[in-house]
Amino acid sequence: MKNVEHVMTAAQLEALARAHFAQIEGLMETTHVGGGHVRVRLVDGTSERHLRPGGTVSGPTQMMLADTAAYFLVLSLVGPVPLAVTTHLSINFMRKPAPGPLEADARILKLGKRLAVCDVLLGDPEAPVAHAQVTYSIPPPDHR
Amino acid sequence: MKNVEHVMTAAQLEALARAHFAQIEGLMETTHVGGGHVRVRLVDGTSERHLRPGGTVSGPTQMMLADTAAYFLVLSLVGPVPLAVTTHLSINFMRKPAPGPLEADARILKLGKRLAVCDVLLGDPEAPVAHAQVTYSIPPPDHR
Amino acid sequence: MKNVEHVMTAAQLEALARAHFAQIEGLMETTHVGGGHVRVRLVDGTSERHLRPGGTVSGPTQMMLADTAAYFLVLSLVGPVPLAVTTHLSINFMRKPAPGPLEADARILKLGKRLAVCDVLLGDPEAPVAHAQVTYSIPPPDHR
Amino acid sequence: MKNVEHVMTAAQLEALARAHFAQIEGLMETTHVGGGHVRVRLVDGTSERHLRPGGTVSGPTQMMLADTAAYFLVLSLVGPVPLAVTTHLSINFMRKPAPGPLEADARILKLGKRLAVCDVLLGDPEAPVAHAQVTYSIPPPDHR
Repeated sequence: MKNVEHVMTAAQLEALARAHFAQIEGLMETTHVGGGHVRVRLVDGTSERHLRPGGTVSGPTQMMLADTAAYFLVLSLVGPVPLAVTTHLSINFMRKPAPGPLEADARILKLGKRLAVCDVLLGDPEAPVAHAQVTYSIPPPDHR
Repeated sequence: MKNVEHVMTAAQLEALARAHFAQIEGLMETTHVGGGHVRVRLVDGTSERHLRPGGTVSGPTQMMLADTAAYFLVLSLVGPVPLAVTTHLSINFMRKPAPGPLEADARILKLGKRLAVCDVLLGDPEAPVAHAQVTYSIPPPDHR
Repeated sequence: MKNVEHVMTAAQLEALARAHFAQIEGLMETTHVGGGHVRVRLVDGTSERHLRPGGTVSGPTQMMLADTAAYFLVLSLVGPVPLAVTTHLSINFMRKPAPGPLEADARILKLGKRLAVCDVLLGDPEAPVAHAQVTYSIPPPDHR
Repeated sequence: MKNVEHVMTAAQLEALARAHFAQIEGLMETTHVGGGHVRVRLVDGTSERHLRPGGTVSGPTQMMLADTAAYFLVLSLVGPVPLAVTTHLSINFMRKPAPGPLEADARILKLGKRLAVCDVLLGDPEAPVAHAQVTYSIPPPDHR
């Protein structure tokens, strides 16, 4: 989608996240907002809590990263609506992530009044670690 | 995935389809094979059989188109293995397709020995009609 | 969901289908409506058009059957709203269906004002052929 | 699937989890193993780390719970194979979970040599919080 306008910056998304989701501070950072894309990087990829046998970033942590990138993408397009909720997520795990930071690139496919559909790639776009479809439900204006 | 090699051409895919899937003749045609992508066009998009109330291409026909594009993509990469089977398909329906031809663009995300993961967009990539994840299981060489 | 009330019978669903989806006549029939479940049987499972190499019911036909069962389930609960549309379908193909009739059992998991989420099993519930999640969007009353 | 045999008990699953996934200790516990089902309860459902705005268990925590229940189900059926990996997860979020413990019920739909397909319900089966399809890839015997 080319004609989308982002109404929140990376710094504003980070501030919102710090206010509402203290637990992600120091774990993920927003590295890009623009052109219908938001990119979020997992900086703490090697913490014990996010690993699984074999030394790789765990599946649940990859799902959290994909969901967060989609959430920030939706917020960047509709403004600070913390009560937006995921209604559906489908993810294919394809390759073991290498140790170190892992980045998610979320792209908007449809921005409707009530539903936003996002496409998220984790890792190198030419050899992705995982690929997710994420749908967010946007509350009506009088419920925000 | 940049370094993939297609081993079947559009004409070879069409011939295979005619031999094994007589029912799709005159319904879909392969318009592109290359660079890790295959594109398949639904030429018969306005046939009564593939419509639903409102005059648009039906969901099942969109799913058949997405599945066929992914199948041809896999065959183009591994050769004529008709017994490859879909193991999973997840599709988001996002916009009503306009009357007329509808095209699916299938892109390879992972080509393993046993599983191939494909990403399929239907319609205009900037405002897609639908988006599908499709996984194919590739039979081992001695079962082909 | 135990406290759901079905407002359309199998015969009414069949009549609606004949009026709006002439193409499914003689292909599928509704065998059960009640208790939050609708079952639809593919009667024409061996027609050439619905088969694939190996002599089994094709994936697209299985998807059509799952989608139809979910659609009829939603209609049975909200009444004759032909413009209800599928927003998402995710299906795992698990076993080759045996030749002969194939039945889908669709069960309601959530019936909201705008979204209905259905769970669909194809074939023997103890060894299912396929399993699908299907989400339908229900148009607001003034758009019906 | 009625004729499945579980080869690990709840206590053995817990011990394996403690050895390989120290981070889940005190967070989840296995409450049932049998009849093709495994149930896992999130005991720490109200910890700050797993909540989101509105005071409910976060989506990522629900996904972790669904994935863990499916993983334990697969291990209970094939034995202690820590390197089994999720290949796909699709989840519908349907209702806000109430405060307090949240339980996942994972059921086996297909147990093949290489892929296991699980169906997972979170919360009250009659009004589920979420519903997931989870596919695990089982490594061949010489890679365990």
